[in-house]
Amino acid sequence: MNRLTYPFVLLIYLLLAAAVRADPLPSWHDGPAKTAIQAFVTAVTRESGPDFVPPSERIAVFDNDGTLWPEQPMYVQLAFALDRLKTLAPQRPEWKEKQPFKAALEGDLKALGQAGEHGLIELVMASHAGMTTDEFAQIVADWLATARHPKFNRPYTELSYQPMLELLAYLRANGFKTYIVSGGGVEFMRPWTQQVYGVPPEQVVGSSIKVKYEARDGKPVLRRLPEIDFIDDKAGKPVGIHQFIGRRPIAAFGNSDGDFEMLEWVTSGPGPRFGLIVHHDDADREFAYDRKSPFGRLDRGLDQAQERHWQVVSMKNDWKRVFPEGGK
Amino acid sequence: MNRLTYPFVLLIYLLLAAAVRADPLPSWHDGPAKTAIQAFVTAVTRESGPDFVPPSERIAVFDNDGTLWPEQPMYVQLAFALDRLKTLAPQRPEWKEKQPFKAALEGDLKALGQAGEHGLIELVMASHAGMTTDEFAQIVADWLATARHPKFNRPYTELSYQPMLELLAYLRANGFKTYIVSGGGVEFMRPWTQQVYGVPPEQVVGSSIKVKYEARDGKPVLRRLPEIDFIDDKAGKPVGIHQFIGRRPIAAFGNSDGDFEMLEWVTSGPGPRFGLIVHHDDADREFAYDRKSPFGRLDRGLDQAQERHWQVVSMKNDWKRVFPEGGK
Repeated sequence: MNRLTYPFVLLIYLLLAAAVRADPLPSWHDGPAKTAIQAFVTAVTRESGPDFVPPSERIAVFDNDGTLWPEQPMYVQLAFALDRLKTLAPQRPEWKEKQPFKAALEGDLKALGQAGEHGLIELVMASHAGMTTDEFAQIVADWLATARHPKFNRPYTELSYQPMLELLAYLRANGFKTYIVSGGGVEFMRPWTQQVYGVPPEQVVGSSIKVKYEARDGKPVLRRLPEIDFIDDKAGKPVGIHQFIGRRPIAAFGNSDGDFEMLEWVTSGPGPRFGLIVHHDDADREFAYDRKSPFGRLDRGLDQAQERHWQVVSMKNDWKRVFPEGGK
Repeated sequence: MNRLTYPFVLLIYLLLAAAVRADPLPSWHDGPAKTAIQAFVTAVTRESGPDFVPPSERIAVFDNDGTLWPEQPMYVQLAFALDRLKTLAPQRPEWKEKQPFKAALEGDLKALGQAGEHGLIELVMASHAGMTTDEFAQIVADWLATARHPKFNRPYTELSYQPMLELLAYLRANGFKTYIVSGGGVEFMRPWTQQVYGVPPEQVVGSSIKVKYEARDGKPVLRRLPEIDFIDDKAGKPVGIHQFIGRRPIAAFGNSDGDFEMLEWVTSGPGPRFGLIVHHDDADREFAYDRKSPFGRLDRGLDQAQERHWQVVSMKNDWKRVFPEGGK
């Protein structure tokens, strides 16, 4: 090392040592959830211990909607789709009279619910397909720059849960590779997950529509087709994990029954395993919902969490704050 | 740092510094290909330079068959499928009289060729589906432990190209994330790519069949279904890159027209780009084939390499050796 490098290395070392001693989860109240998280991370990183896991196998998967950011009063991507349909409506006058487009343009959530899965897929195809992948990424980025959450009046990208951001960073600092495994559209997430969660696009698994490689004005593009490719939800989550990551993670974090199979798959493997469910019980600071919610329903997971040794986190009691600085 | 750690850190630093000065591509003859590779890597890593690329965007994709290991006299995975069918044949007496199984069991490559794509898919399904993903990984590992290449009489995993191993390591040492993007089955590769190429399973993109999440004896498994999920070849390669990696790589390495669209997609993006084709022109040390080969046909790529600024590597003239120690 040259004369200049050494003091810097020493400084960085001392700062890192100080950081290790500091609380890595300052927004978590001391309690069983925080204790369990830290005990797991300590166990898998202690080289001489019986539960040591080499860094290459330290893979943690996180659901997105309801686990890392809000999913009420509706999925963020659904809010995006509805806004997008409104933008496109002047070119599609027939939508005014045609369901489910009429309901979408009027914001009639009840009629939208009656349109069922097939109706929702029609809306997604009309709002998410036809353009190139680069164009779609730009549309998402532009929307996120101006859209606001109706309850908190802040950009969605400022509404990731502060305790979960700390958890992601804590796992990464301990050699984990953190993945998002979401039922939402993978291309809706990839433009912003690095900036908001520190998760690069190649570590995002999600639902997708098909894309086609073709030439446009002599240049190759990938065009988004109005055809479902993969639904990364429920029993699709272990499938998506297998196809994209190719090995079984050792820790899984979710909040709804859509994450049940992912939690089951991850925590039923051999060796040390960790499963955690975020329970939305904080109507004051966020939302309170579980067994009867149309978005993020949590029923079976609540029933079976204890016998499966999954930690259930109470947002109300386990989290000192919900959102980063600037929110409540 | 404690008293013991510091000398080790210093030692590692000195060794690394020495390694940086040493030739990172010792099995490459000095010549245009080696010069172009090193010029590209130097350009994208020089922070003050006009072509600097941040490490997160330094993604390089490699074809597998014919680019990292041999694909003659047939794809390794086809040799695996034929051996697997022979293992299963006693339980399937009807195969003796039924094409394409009869041809496969008799090693009749001509009749196999006549069976066409549909026939080959039938063989893959019969040999690759039905078991769990864990069972299949074990079957592949067991086969690779005993199978030998017919010309070189060495395990396939010892027949990766030494110059390409050096190239993979050189790119990684310069902050690149190296991916495999192969027309071969992703689950055929993932069990051994870390050990052989230093590429972890989550950085392998390939063709796939569908899998289903289900319970077996009360434990969750992923069962392989006899149904094509995705073909990662030709125009499928940019699609696979997009779906799995989610951003456009800046360097691509291939050897056949199956890699044409991947090379095209990667090298037509903005900023510094690198494309390279391995040309099999070494009948003595490996194989010589291009425009007329049934496996790894290279025709359009040879015609267009120059105008597209893709490096064409002559195995005969650019490589000092083909295989690692122990081979020719």
